[in-house]
Amino acid sequence: MSKPNKTTGPEARLPKGFRDIGASEIRVTQAMIEKIRAVYERYGFEPLETPAIEFTDALGKFLPDQDRPNAGVFSFQDEDETWMSLRYDLTAPLARHVAENYATLPKPFRRYATGSVFRNEKPGPGRFRQFTQFDADTVGTDNIAADAEMCMLAADTLEALGIARGDYVVKVNSRKVLDGILESVGIDLADAHKRLAVLRSLDKMDKFKKQDIALLLGTGRKDESGDFTKGAGLDSKQIDAVIAFATQTEIETPEGGVVTTRVGGFEITERYREGIFDLVKIQNLVRAAGYGKDRIRLDMSVVRGLEYYTGPVFEAELTFQVNDDDGNPVRFGSVGGGGRYDDLVSRFTGEKVPATGFSIGVSRLQAALTALGKTGADAATGPVVVLVMDKADIGTYQRLTQTLRQAGIRAEMYLGSSGMKAQMKYADKRNSPCVVIQGGDERADGKVTLKDLIEGAKAAAAIKDNKEWKAARPAQITVAEAEMVARVREILARHAPAATGTES
Amino acid sequence: MSKPNKTTGPEARLPKGFRDIGASEIRVTQAMIEKIRAVYERYGFEPLETPAIEFTDALGKFLPDQDRPNAGVFSFQDEDETWMSLRYDLTAPLARHVAENYATLPKPFRRYATGSVFRNEKPGPGRFRQFTQFDADTVGTDNIAADAEMCMLAADTLEALGIARGDYVVKVNSRKVLDGILESVGIDLADAHKRLAVLRSLDKMDKFKKQDIALLLGTGRKDESGDFTKGAGLDSKQIDAVIAFATQTEIETPEGGVVTTRVGGFEITERYREGIFDLVKIQNLVRAAGYGKDRIRLDMSVVRGLEYYTGPVFEAELTFQVNDDDGNPVRFGSVGGGGRYDDLVSRFTGEKVPATGFSIGVSRLQAALTALGKTGADAATGPVVVLVMDKADIGTYQRLTQTLRQAGIRAEMYLGSSGMKAQMKYADKRNSPCVVIQGGDERADGKVTLKDLIEGAKAAAAIKDNKEWKAARPAQITVAEAEMVARVREILARHAPAATGTES
Repeated sequence: MSKPNKTTGPEARLPKGFRDIGASEIRVTQAMIEKIRAVYERYGFEPLETPAIEFTDALGKFLPDQDRPNAGVFSFQDEDETWMSLRYDLTAPLARHVAENYATLPKPFRRYATGSVFRNEKPGPGRFRQFTQFDADTVGTDNIAADAEMCMLAADTLEALGIARGDYVVKVNSRKVLDGILESVGIDLADAHKRLAVLRSLDKMDKFKKQDIALLLGTGRKDESGDFTKGAGLDSKQIDAVIAFATQTEIETPEGGVVTTRVGGFEITERYREGIFDLVKIQNLVRAAGYGKDRIRLDMSVVRGLEYYTGPVFEAELTFQVNDDDGNPVRFGSVGGGGRYDDLVSRFTGEKVPATGFSIGVSRLQAALTALGKTGADAATGPVVVLVMDKADIGTYQRLTQTLRQAGIRAEMYLGSSGMKAQMKYADKRNSPCVVIQGGDERADGKVTLKDLIEGAKAAAAIKDNKEWKAARPAQITVAEAEMVARVREILARHAPAATGTES
Repeated sequence: MSKPNKTTGPEARLPKGFRDIGASEIRVTQAMIEKIRAVYERYGFEPLETPAIEFTDALGKFLPDQDRPNAGVFSFQDEDETWMSLRYDLTAPLARHVAENYATLPKPFRRYATGSVFRNEKPGPGRFRQFTQFDADTVGTDNIAADAEMCMLAADTLEALGIARGDYVVKVNSRKVLDGILESVGIDLADAHKRLAVLRSLDKMDKFKKQDIALLLGTGRKDESGDFTKGAGLDSKQIDAVIAFATQTEIETPEGGVVTTRVGGFEITERYREGIFDLVKIQNLVRAAGYGKDRIRLDMSVVRGLEYYTGPVFEAELTFQVNDDDGNPVRFGSVGGGGRYDDLVSRFTGEKVPATGFSIGVSRLQAALTALGKTGADAATGPVVVLVMDKADIGTYQRLTQTLRQAGIRAEMYLGSSGMKAQMKYADKRNSPCVVIQGGDERADGKVTLKDLIEGAKAAAAIKDNKEWKAARPAQITVAEAEMVARVREILARHAPAATGTES
C-alpha cells in the first residue's frame, strides 16, 4: 500500500464539502440524538421518516440564498425526465407528506424527524454539503401556543444536552414585526432587494457594533479586510428608527392591549401590531410555564434565513465563549431555529394549513458541546483481543473469542498475519483493555494468560529495563480457561468509566 | 383541505420507489438497529460513517444488474462538471475510505456502518429505491478466519433479533468453487454471457425443482405465465455434472487434504481445489467455535449478485414459511449476505488489500420479523393530552403540561381550535393513555380531573346508555393539582406493557 499506483485507478477522495465520520464522533452524535429524541418524545411528537429524494417541484425553492434562487439543491432527472432533488431540509418534505396524507392524520399533526440534508453550496470551514438536522413541527393549527411550545422545547433540549441555564438563550421575533418595522419607516415591502438588505443588517446586530449596523442600513460599510458591503440606503432618521424598533426587548403591554404607537418618530402599522401581539402571547405563555428571560426572550433583531416563515421566528443561541486553537474567543451563536410557516402546505392544496416548527443543527451543536467538554465522550473501550500464537490453532483462538462474545464481552481474534509484537501494537491501537494469550504450554495445561494493557502501560512507565520487566511480568495473570470470562470481567470492571451524570 | 386547489401548485407525491415511514415502523427499526449494533460491537467492529454522495469514479460499477452496467445509480454533476453519485451500497465507500486513510488505520481495519443506500432501478412490491443496510467488514487481511467470523456474526445477529435456531441458516460458498465448476465442465470463464447464465440458474436452486434448473442450464425454460427464459446451452453431461457439483453439502475432506478429484465425470481444477480448501477452513473454524450445520453450512449453489466478490460468499436465509395476505405460503429467503472482495481497494492504489464483509438488508429483515410477530412492537403509548377547556386560560394548561413533561411524562396541550368532543377524539387518535381536564370549578378548587382512556374505553363497552355513563363517570378521578404527576404515573403504570423478553 505504500506505493501509489501510477498507471490506472480513480483517486480515493471525497467531493468537497463531504466528510467521513469516525467512531468517537459517531458515538457522541448517537448519544446526542438519543437525548434530543427523549425531549421531543416527552413533548408528544411522533417520529416520521421521509426519503432523501423528492420531486423538485414538491420541495420548492426556499433556500436562504436569495441571490442564487436556482442554486443550492442537488438535482437530477428520473427516467421519465422529471426532476428530482435531494432534500435541503426536513420541513419541505413534511409539507409534502401532510398535503398527501391530510385526511388520515391526527390534527394537529405533531412529528419529529432527524436525518441528513443536502445543500449544493460552497463549503467552508465547519460548513458541509451534507449535515444532520433534528426537527419538531406542529402542523394544522394557528394556535400561538404551538409556537411558544417550540421555544420551551428548544430550551429543554439544550439543557438535556448539558448546556447550563445562562449559557444559551432562545430568542423570539416575528416576521410580521420585522415587516411592520420596514412599513413603519416607509420601505416598500415589494422592493425585495431593499427589504433583504435591511433584514441582513438586522441579522448582524448580535455580532456588530451599532454604528456598523447604521452603516449597513445606510451608505454601506467597509470591513477590516477592505471589502465593501453596499448599504440598504436608508436615511438617518429611518436608520435610527429601525435600530430603536429592533432593540426593544421585554414588552410590558398586556395581551390584546395598547402597544406603543410611535417608535423613533414613525407610526406603527397594523402588521407590526399583530406581530407584537403574537410575541406578547408567546412571552406570557412561556412565563406562565416558568421559563424566565434567561431562557426565552424577545429580540426584534432576529431574522432567520428561510423565506417561508410567515409569523413568529425562533433562534436558539449559545451565549458562552470558548477559545479557538489560536486562543481567540469564539462564540458559537445559533445552533437551531425555526418559526411559523403558514403557506407551505397550501402550495400543494390551495387550502391554508398553518404550521410551526423548530430545527436543531446537530453537527453545529455537537462542535459546541465538544468545545465545552460536555459530550460525555469517555474514550470508548476497544475489544479484548485474542492473540494468535500459532496459526495452526486458530480454531482454538476462535473458540476462546466466541466464548467471550457469548458472555457479552466485546472481543475479537487477531486477524492479521503479523507476529506477537505487531499484535500487541494492534491491541494498543484498538484501545483494547486486555489481551488473551494462549501458547503451547498454556494450551497443554488448559490455561490462558490475560494481560491488562491499561495496568501494564502504567507499570511499564515505572519499570527501568527489559530484564526487570521480564522478571515482574506486571499486570499479567495465568488462569484456567474456564475462569477466563470471570477474570476478563474483573479487568473490564477495573477500567470501566465511572458512571456518569444525570439524565434529565 | 377537503377541496384540492384546481388552479396551481405541485402535486403532493413521491417519486416511485420511495416511501414515508411512520412512527410504529420507525420504532421497530430503531430497536432492530440497536440489537444489530450490539452484536457488531461485541465482535469488535467500530462505527464509521461515510457521506451519501461520492465521486462516481470512486464508487465504480459493481451493481448486480450486469445487463445495464451504466444504470442503477443516481448520478449528477458538480459545479466543475465532475460526476457524483449516491452510494448504492456501503462497501464501495468503505474501499474509498480505506484507500484514502490506509496509513493511519489499524490493520486489519474492522468497521461497521449503517445507513441509506440508493438504487436507480425499477421499483416493485417491497423493492424500493432507497433502503437501509447494516454492514460489517474486515479490511486488510486474507485470513480466512475473517470470513468464518462473518458467518458467525450473521448467525448471532439473527438470533439476537429473535429468530430461533432452525428458522435461519447461513450458507457459505466460494466464487472460486463456482468458477472452478464452470472450468471443470469446460465453460470458458471469459464467456461472460454463458458464465452469468449458469450462475443465475444455480442461484435458483433453492426455489426451483431440479428439472427446471436442468432446463435453465440447457435449452431454456417456459414458466407458468408462458414467459421463456433462454438457457445457458450446456449439454446433458455438463448439466448433470454442474448439478452434482452444486448439490454437494458438508465436505468431509480434511483441511489441506485430498478432495474428490472427479465430479460427474469431469476432473476438478486447481481453482476449484483452492475454493474447496477455503470452505473446509471456514467449516472447521465455525464448528470449532460451536456453530453446527443447523446454523452455518456449505452450499455450492450460492451465487450472490455483486460482481466484486473474489472468494468465499455468504448468504443469510430465513427458512421458515409464513402465509401472505391471501393465505399462500411465502419464504422470505435471503435477508443478508456478503463475501470476500480482494480487489476493491486496489482499484485505487494498485496494491492488494484483501477484505471481507457481511451486510444485512434491514428493511427486508424487518418485514420478515413483522410477519413472525418478533418485532416486540407493543403499540407505543401516546402522550398524555391536557385538554383546553377555556382558551383564555391556555397559560394554565401550558403550565400543567410543562409540569408533566418536567416529571419525565410524555405530554402535550391540545393545540387545535376544536371543542371538547373533538379534543377527546384527538386524544384517542394519538393513543393517549389519559387526558387532564381542568374546568372553571376545578381551577377554583386547585384541582384537575384525570380520565383514564384505556379503562374508560373498557367501561364504556359495558355501560348501556348515556345517563348511566354520566352517573358512573368511570375511570375518572379528580385530584389536587399537586397530586397530578403522581396520579398520572399510576395510570401509566397500570397500562405499561409488561416487561418484554431477553436481550442476548
